[in-house]
Amino acid sequence: MRTQFYTASSLDGFIATETDSLDWLFPLGDINDTSYPQFIQEVGALAMGAATYEWLRHNIVQPESGPPGEWPYEQPAWVFTSRSLPAVPDADIRFVQGDVRPVHDEMRVEGNGRNIWLLGGGDLVGQFYDAALLDEIIVQIGSVTLGAGKPLLPRRITFPSLKLMSVQQVGHGFAELRYEVSYPPDNQENS
Amino acid sequence: MRTQFYTASSLDGFIATETDSLDWLFPLGDINDTSYPQFIQEVGALAMGAATYEWLRHNIVQPESGPPGEWPYEQPAWVFTSRSLPAVPDADIRFVQGDVRPVHDEMRVEGNGRNIWLLGGGDLVGQFYDAALLDEIIVQIGSVTLGAGKPLLPRRITFPSLKLMSVQQVGHGFAELRYEVSYPPDNQENS
Repeated sequence: MRTQFYTASSLDGFIATETDSLDWLFPLGDINDTSYPQFIQEVGALAMGAATYEWLRHNIVQPESGPPGEWPYEQPAWVFTSRSLPAVPDADIRFVQGDVRPVHDEMRVEGNGRNIWLLGGGDLVGQFYDAALLDEIIVQIGSVTLGAGKPLLPRRITFPSLKLMSVQQVGHGFAELRYEVSYPPDNQENS
Repeated sequence: MRTQFYTASSLDGFIATETDSLDWLFPLGDINDTSYPQFIQEVGALAMGAATYEWLRHNIVQPESGPPGEWPYEQPAWVFTSRSLPAVPDADIRFVQGDVRPVHDEMRVEGNGRNIWLLGGGDLVGQFYDAALLDEIIVQIGSVTLGAGKPLLPRRITFPSLKLMSVQQVGHGFAELRYEVSYPPDNQENS
């Protein structure tokens, strides 16, 4: 069981524009050419922040233009939010807040030994990192710069550094980089 | 002749910390294992901003601790600065300011058909991009996040996107990504 931050970012480290737009992302390639189809099969539980959940609701489930869509995940999803947000019908969604550690324990049990996917945003993933619960970062680096936007991971992770495990070119639009995360010796109680 | 932005950055898109520190960079690997030795042989002229020049002066030429060192480049170097800065003895350095286009013309002539290396910072490279003079971006993505710092390239380059040409893993510390830059149809006078 691995806890994985799997995401796409711009070359300059943004996962979305300031207004949470991903319009720059979709022209860059076909998700089925990446590791995603394999990756998602091994996921047992999802966690995301409120902005990611709201993006999914407003762009996939109830888009402003076009027909409504289905919630895209079969796995149970934990949404960290301090606000009250509408549920999505027929989706297994649990609204939570506060410390990520008890939620991670619950996800691990319900995920039944499969991986835990942190969809983002960056600050939520940072909280898992702070608790020494983040095992891997897998980033599809899109061939764009945004100049400003929502940061990939607003933390300084330098000593120890990440450990690059593999690189993969996906057409002209993506470079997929996989990292293992390790922790300073005084911060390993959960890893 | 190609005008190239060759640099290292963190995974989250910073080329230095807020205080221009590169202490996170050097433990990540040996520059001689990267494409740098081959790259520098094909360079005929350098351009950099004032902060990059001052970093070289204070860390290589006249370090606070340790013995003084030599200016590390044989090629003529153009330093964009609005301030008066000290020269480095025995180094071919020309202080310039303002529009990058006439300086690029001069670099092209003196570089004698070899490539032009833009060392950074990001905003100076952005000015070359704005003038449609930047041909390639070659980034060694170091296996760290900084969370804040000096941005890689403070521009939004999305339509057309960059074109990823190759990826290369350098140990666990670097992923080298090479991009070609193209321009909107109304902005190609110089490319």
